[in-house]
Amino acid sequence: MLKTVIVGASGYTGAELTRMVHQHPSLELVGLYVSANSADAGKPISDLHGWLKGQVDAPLQPLKDVSEVGKKADVVLLATAHEVSHDIAPLFLEQQCTVMDLSGAFRVKGDNFYPDYYGFEHQHGEWLDKAVYGLAEWNEAEIAQADLVAVPGCYPTASQLALKPLIEAGLLDGKQWPVINAVSGVSGAGRKASMANSFCEVSLNAYGIFSHRHQPEISAHLGQDVIFTPHLGNFKRGILATITAKLADGVTEAQVSEALENAYGDTPLVRALGVNQSAKLQSVQQTGYCDIGWSVQGQHVILTSAIDNLLKGAASQAMQCINIRFGFSPLTAIV
Amino acid sequence: MLKTVIVGASGYTGAELTRMVHQHPSLELVGLYVSANSADAGKPISDLHGWLKGQVDAPLQPLKDVSEVGKKADVVLLATAHEVSHDIAPLFLEQQCTVMDLSGAFRVKGDNFYPDYYGFEHQHGEWLDKAVYGLAEWNEAEIAQADLVAVPGCYPTASQLALKPLIEAGLLDGKQWPVINAVSGVSGAGRKASMANSFCEVSLNAYGIFSHRHQPEISAHLGQDVIFTPHLGNFKRGILATITAKLADGVTEAQVSEALENAYGDTPLVRALGVNQSAKLQSVQQTGYCDIGWSVQGQHVILTSAIDNLLKGAASQAMQCINIRFGFSPLTAIV
Amino acid sequence: MLKTVIVGASGYTGAELTRMVHQHPSLELVGLYVSANSADAGKPISDLHGWLKGQVDAPLQPLKDVSEVGKKADVVLLATAHEVSHDIAPLFLEQQCTVMDLSGAFRVKGDNFYPDYYGFEHQHGEWLDKAVYGLAEWNEAEIAQADLVAVPGCYPTASQLALKPLIEAGLLDGKQWPVINAVSGVSGAGRKASMANSFCEVSLNAYGIFSHRHQPEISAHLGQDVIFTPHLGNFKRGILATITAKLADGVTEAQVSEALENAYGDTPLVRALGVNQSAKLQSVQQTGYCDIGWSVQGQHVILTSAIDNLLKGAASQAMQCINIRFGFSPLTAIV
Amino acid sequence: MLKTVIVGASGYTGAELTRMVHQHPSLELVGLYVSANSADAGKPISDLHGWLKGQVDAPLQPLKDVSEVGKKADVVLLATAHEVSHDIAPLFLEQQCTVMDLSGAFRVKGDNFYPDYYGFEHQHGEWLDKAVYGLAEWNEAEIAQADLVAVPGCYPTASQLALKPLIEAGLLDGKQWPVINAVSGVSGAGRKASMANSFCEVSLNAYGIFSHRHQPEISAHLGQDVIFTPHLGNFKRGILATITAKLADGVTEAQVSEALENAYGDTPLVRALGVNQSAKLQSVQQTGYCDIGWSVQGQHVILTSAIDNLLKGAASQAMQCINIRFGFSPLTAIV
Repeated sequence: MLKTVIVGASGYTGAELTRMVHQHPSLELVGLYVSANSADAGKPISDLHGWLKGQVDAPLQPLKDVSEVGKKADVVLLATAHEVSHDIAPLFLEQQCTVMDLSGAFRVKGDNFYPDYYGFEHQHGEWLDKAVYGLAEWNEAEIAQADLVAVPGCYPTASQLALKPLIEAGLLDGKQWPVINAVSGVSGAGRKASMANSFCEVSLNAYGIFSHRHQPEISAHLGQDVIFTPHLGNFKRGILATITAKLADGVTEAQVSEALENAYGDTPLVRALGVNQSAKLQSVQQTGYCDIGWSVQGQHVILTSAIDNLLKGAASQAMQCINIRFGFSPLTAIV
Repeated sequence: MLKTVIVGASGYTGAELTRMVHQHPSLELVGLYVSANSADAGKPISDLHGWLKGQVDAPLQPLKDVSEVGKKADVVLLATAHEVSHDIAPLFLEQQCTVMDLSGAFRVKGDNFYPDYYGFEHQHGEWLDKAVYGLAEWNEAEIAQADLVAVPGCYPTASQLALKPLIEAGLLDGKQWPVINAVSGVSGAGRKASMANSFCEVSLNAYGIFSHRHQPEISAHLGQDVIFTPHLGNFKRGILATITAKLADGVTEAQVSEALENAYGDTPLVRALGVNQSAKLQSVQQTGYCDIGWSVQGQHVILTSAIDNLLKGAASQAMQCINIRFGFSPLTAIV
Repeated sequence: MLKTVIVGASGYTGAELTRMVHQHPSLELVGLYVSANSADAGKPISDLHGWLKGQVDAPLQPLKDVSEVGKKADVVLLATAHEVSHDIAPLFLEQQCTVMDLSGAFRVKGDNFYPDYYGFEHQHGEWLDKAVYGLAEWNEAEIAQADLVAVPGCYPTASQLALKPLIEAGLLDGKQWPVINAVSGVSGAGRKASMANSFCEVSLNAYGIFSHRHQPEISAHLGQDVIFTPHLGNFKRGILATITAKLADGVTEAQVSEALENAYGDTPLVRALGVNQSAKLQSVQQTGYCDIGWSVQGQHVILTSAIDNLLKGAASQAMQCINIRFGFSPLTAIV
Repeated sequence: MLKTVIVGASGYTGAELTRMVHQHPSLELVGLYVSANSADAGKPISDLHGWLKGQVDAPLQPLKDVSEVGKKADVVLLATAHEVSHDIAPLFLEQQCTVMDLSGAFRVKGDNFYPDYYGFEHQHGEWLDKAVYGLAEWNEAEIAQADLVAVPGCYPTASQLALKPLIEAGLLDGKQWPVINAVSGVSGAGRKASMANSFCEVSLNAYGIFSHRHQPEISAHLGQDVIFTPHLGNFKRGILATITAKLADGVTEAQVSEALENAYGDTPLVRALGVNQSAKLQSVQQTGYCDIGWSVQGQHVILTSAIDNLLKGAASQAMQCINIRFGFSPLTAIV
């Protein structure tokens, strides 16, 4: 049994991680932590997430001595803010913990990314270099060896899963940037009181236009510029991404279908729905699946990619990485 | 043209009041005010309520000198917190303003109500005595003469409109307390960032069980004890109240129907739907109507009463009171 | 492995049953059936319920020869209409199947119930007599021996779980009828195209006032008249029941709390939240739990009871009965 | 007073038209019609749309003799299916009615459009030629003279209002097709019982990919190919369109802003929100406004355009056309 700790356990992703670690036959949940000054410190997690009551009622402990916690843990899941993950991941890694970081702090290598998009200078370049991007279906071999996994962002997961097969197969016109429009449920904004996610203020709107940090994450990992526009929708969970891209000259629908079906022929958590199928949010909400549909007309392809932002977009993808890393059956605690 | 001022204009009720005053041919909107230390002071109201843009873009001014504002106003609408209304209504009244107070500060007479239920001692007993309860369909004659109208609470409006006809006609069994269960949209909680009204935290639950201050308001005005249980639901606007009551011996359905149909035969904004009809929230949302349906079986009556909590439950009932007080056509700016 | 068949597998309850049977380590799903003339016959269940894709893609077969199907099954789950269950349950029982019927067809004994409330004369009085009411936490010993389990209705489950402890302990005033107001998500109306459940027609309203057949089911099993008023709400899943009852003279809150905590002290799927707690729909949606909260003031008690109508209100309660009947661990395939 | 008739009054658009005609001081509502075999024939419109009760309770009459109805009407609003409008509009026009057709039957001139996209051959080419496209802010002079106005589709209205200023000013790169992704509330699907709009089946998904007939309508009127992908969302009303387009070489943000601000500087119902503003659905729901925001980065512009699909996307735009055609104040019955 691997002793597992979750930091940042009070949020929506933290609660899902808690559920999955609890359900996992080979993981032993040994600690739930929040920041030392959190108002939730001391409360049972099920006070915040009533659905967990009777399953996990462990207290949210204030995280004070990271190294001490790290000494008693094998696996650490960080559902913390980027700057927090940036600071504490190395402390856990020094204790030989395997760390799954769900923040953006170790997702993109290179000198400029963190100053440009996250507003801080990265102080742990060596860990940034070693970090493995946790896009489970695509980086399995590397994840299997990783000490530090940077779990992808939710929108980047939905976007890359749809586009990578086409880009890897050279099917896209390199000169036009794919246009990604995605709508997310409000849980993506985190568990907090703010006007923007106040019930009466939510309807549907685009935000972070030309400026959302998930766009450079997507571009960096696809090796392709994209235009990415996120939207906040009036539902709790899920992301639907609609991607419009120009195909390279002469590319046919059959080639597009082949690329997607080959990529996902034996990946149980990514369901290539088929040509002329359209992904539905309801089919993935509350599940660890990603559904991808696509259509081709003339020189354009439109793909739809649906995930649950808290699961395939965060917690269940982290669990996939744990299963890969430690050789557990790939769907354990997920399906 | 009556010069009209709205205080507490930044909230959801304030925005509806703004719209209606703007639309009213005999009211001139001369000022929108927020508390002096409000973070919204200086912003156009349409920055907070984008739907008003192009209709009313007036700034939310910090309220500093109440008497000065009162000197230039004929009518003052207070969409402020109870303690604020308690303090400033008299200052406006001293300037001979007619004041419509949408808070609870002047709704219930008697020595104990405010200490018991609002946590403060009322300092303006004389105005409390003079205040007229603004349940428009029932207190028309008094409202027509009032300087200070205490606009009823949202839940009390829905509850009283349904029960008053039966109580006035002596049709209920005095020994059993009517049971009122009501569900409200989240706008009733006000425009603010709080965990309770955060989008991802809202589903359906009862709150204020045995302790909501609207229960004594209802009881005081009906002259009848009730059990009132409010619920918060996953929608923005509206209240549906379901009321179960025991009829006095020998009372028939015909008598119940007669009482309701007589009470509301010529009140255009209260629609008595008929026996065996059930009020639907969608029929009243975004309107100033109250719909009432009822059924009788044996010695029990069940009534359903639906309103828009921001309109008939607040702003449009205030407007009804203005129309009554100044002799305007009763539906002006409402329908 | 018990060979398990689901009839009426196309609906929302059927899909949940399918998921749970598939996940159950001791059940083997050997057939999914729909009525012989169903438009869905032949389709994979995952065509209707996309979330099942990749988990269960079995076809919905037209049910033609019930006895033949029964010969190859050990356990039969009927998620069929009442008249259909009434007709086919005995045919399966004759093949020595254990039958879990999720319809109302065998829930209430006595001569008048079916003519009065379901509009048909019961033709299988002997099976009606033998049928065990599947309220899992209360009828464990009988369920363990049953060939035919009548799984309770959704509203009756929520209502009885809250009230039974108080009634069994003699804490209620027998002269006043408890008032049960419940709101259900639209999935309770079934998977069909109708104006009433059309997205744009749903808001919030009471229905079946004084006439819903769940009222006599509740009364029959509690041995107590109740007034039960269901409502349809603007969400997909869940039921919140708010129950107001008069306590017998001298009954204290401590007695009420004791009755509830004793009843549910070691029933993992019913969570007695504690005095002054209020059940939240979000804590039970998508789970097999029932949450119960309660408050006492004077001679009144108000209880709130929340379940997922498709799970504790149907499919997971059926699974609880299977686990009891066959000696499986009680939470198998549920938590 | 212009005698006004509404055909197809039972639907959601029909109900909004009814409200607005009723409120219009210069229009007299003389008849509400449905198809002769409609199940709703004979019912008061307020039976279907309870919010109208007490405002308009007129019966939905079966439409039998179109010419007879036309003889008594000055203005006819057709909220009918395309083939129905195609057939009956000429009959009304022969009676010298002014016809506002909300269907697609007269929106796009040319020989192939109706066979290709609507599945029928147009039999009224002369009326098709004379029909004026009712995009109110852009075709005012023609609408003022029109006998037959083809009110634009909902998605085309949102899309064209955003793009036309840029296309007219020659700011877009002609070689790349603007990508329009739009999400609509379910009322756009019409008032009917169908699985697709059944409450429990709605979440979020794209549909009509590469095949929605609004795409050629948009392209025909913009003179520009576009890629248009509609989505159905989990709300009742509103459309948010997010449009991504490539700017022509050297085009600056200032030019884009100028084009939009000039186009809408004095159009009260289209609000150009400003650069770096993002349209919100809540600001337009239940109003006749269109909000447009835009951002520019490098050679790309992203516009957001929000309308209420039943109002600016149908009924209030029809009313704008009536106000233009008959010289009424432009906001009459709209704001």
